[in-house]
Amino acid sequence: MASKRLGKQTIKLAVPPSIISAYTIVGPKEGEGPLAEYFDSILKDDYFGEDSWEKAESKMLREAVKNAIKLSGKNDSDIDYLLAGDLLNQIISSSFAARELQIPFLGLYGACSTMAESLSVGSMLIDGGYADTIVCVTSSHFSSAERQYRFPLEQGVQRPPYAQWTVTGSGASVLSAAGKGPYITYITTGKVIDFGIKDGNNMGAAMAPAAADTISAHLKETGRSPGYYDLIVTGDLATVGREITIDLLKKEGYYIEPVYNDCGIMIFDGKKQDTHSGGSGCGCSASVLNGYLYKEMQKGNLNKILFIATGALLSPISAWQGESIPSIAHAIAIERTIQGVS
Amino acid sequence: MASKRLGKQTIKLAVPPSIISAYTIVGPKEGEGPLAEYFDSILKDDYFGEDSWEKAESKMLREAVKNAIKLSGKNDSDIDYLLAGDLLNQIISSSFAARELQIPFLGLYGACSTMAESLSVGSMLIDGGYADTIVCVTSSHFSSAERQYRFPLEQGVQRPPYAQWTVTGSGASVLSAAGKGPYITYITTGKVIDFGIKDGNNMGAAMAPAAADTISAHLKETGRSPGYYDLIVTGDLATVGREITIDLLKKEGYYIEPVYNDCGIMIFDGKKQDTHSGGSGCGCSASVLNGYLYKEMQKGNLNKILFIATGALLSPISAWQGESIPSIAHAIAIERTIQGVS
Repeated sequence: MASKRLGKQTIKLAVPPSIISAYTIVGPKEGEGPLAEYFDSILKDDYFGEDSWEKAESKMLREAVKNAIKLSGKNDSDIDYLLAGDLLNQIISSSFAARELQIPFLGLYGACSTMAESLSVGSMLIDGGYADTIVCVTSSHFSSAERQYRFPLEQGVQRPPYAQWTVTGSGASVLSAAGKGPYITYITTGKVIDFGIKDGNNMGAAMAPAAADTISAHLKETGRSPGYYDLIVTGDLATVGREITIDLLKKEGYYIEPVYNDCGIMIFDGKKQDTHSGGSGCGCSASVLNGYLYKEMQKGNLNKILFIATGALLSPISAWQGESIPSIAHAIAIERTIQGVS
Repeated sequence: MASKRLGKQTIKLAVPPSIISAYTIVGPKEGEGPLAEYFDSILKDDYFGEDSWEKAESKMLREAVKNAIKLSGKNDSDIDYLLAGDLLNQIISSSFAARELQIPFLGLYGACSTMAESLSVGSMLIDGGYADTIVCVTSSHFSSAERQYRFPLEQGVQRPPYAQWTVTGSGASVLSAAGKGPYITYITTGKVIDFGIKDGNNMGAAMAPAAADTISAHLKETGRSPGYYDLIVTGDLATVGREITIDLLKKEGYYIEPVYNDCGIMIFDGKKQDTHSGGSGCGCSASVLNGYLYKEMQKGNLNKILFIATGALLSPISAWQGESIPSIAHAIAIERTIQGVS
């Protein structure tokens, strides 16, 4: 092997797979945010016709997959693997959606890093010749996440100013061996990093060191400078985590600020929408990637992006037992054109 | 691609990776069972020196990984990916172990199918040239699983006769591109199957249709007959699920009974150990595979096995909301020698 691997964490894909279609579905609040026009479907209420938030979340994920497949011009039976994960215990949004879809299924868990994890594994499986077409998907839901991770919504707990708001949304990408881009050219797989943050409301600060570690590994191992990319975009560090990431990378000699943004900052208008530090949840980076970023790449407004989804790998049990928050970040380089391919 | 893929679910590995080492660590009860001599380490108490069962489980997983790497003659820094998952919410056993190990980490969730899922993904990543060496690992812990999925142990709830006993154990395999076997030759990835079972104690019945579906797909797509294998071994269907699997496959024209067993039946003496239908949990198939099966293959007592780990993809929330139990099974063909390789 070896030739595909650059350093310890990065893979250069020999035959970069294309993202041939993408679909997003988001909740009402996300539909009032600055990226509204980029989402394919906006729910009127976050029950989505179901009798629980968990069932609504699973339905969002399933609909995102079905519609992404439809947009790709393929049939469900053309899909070789479904790579999916979400925030709910035992990733039930994904598993119950997979039950309806009847596609060979590999369940993933990377918390909010899952969109990048699914694209990483999916890209290797296509590039390696194990699949022609793969769907990568993830979801989150504000209400199902709040009651699982924090408090019953009815309790009306006050949130600290650095807290984030879990995005209600799902985004799905169809990857194909044959396509005209945008191409996934490099993947950088993260290690688990933990700087000792214990405050479950302060996810951005907990995840920032993992983001910085993966971005730094990516830049070192590819030999690229931050300016190679039109946009370096993290998953859901929001305003607090963004600042820390910029600072940590400055210490490594990388000045990313001019090209850097975060999906958690982009998806909400923090002041008008009372979302404090910004958005979070698997659905945050999934809907911004498959909505805004994908469409802007198709239009040619973005040509080269580095997408880094970030996950906080805690559970309520680990927090109650006094543990800090281990975090991870996986990076995906997406480019509209590649050398020798137009 | 195409040449590596047989039918819809099966991959033939072009350069089959070897399992170059394996390590198991189990709890006291498993250490009193019929496979005791095959486990590398047996705990004296299931806290393993920690102050919670969850921390003990994570430590088991971490120790299994460290010792498997040691046995392989490699260093932690030689490992390209850690592929891990477990039953705890947000797979904290895996994530917290990954924090200590500092190996690029891909978290998986397939409930008790995770050992086969990790070996499937790991085999493709090695065969595809993305890695030289990968550790695949999973764990479960009776006490952490009972309180998460069922009732506080202190409550002393009576278990129905068809209930299974979650295995306290972890098993890790080191996969390598260079090795002398046993080789992973084929993988068959499962679809999510749900026959409508809603009783969370009756996991064997819930998972059996998924096992039968995957075994049937594997045999059809490879053109092999059940008798090709010395042993077809499911993960944790136990006695109830085993019977159903045999019956379902009989209807498909496959008579597997003479070569068929189940890790959940093998790991405990159901009558003496009061485990009812048999063992379950990610750690069940992981410890039987990496303990008994691996060692018997090394001795030459088993040459060709089909290992099918089975997962019930429910959560307590999905059960409380009246959902049935979606299940999945992934199959791995492991062979001591391969054509052209001794």
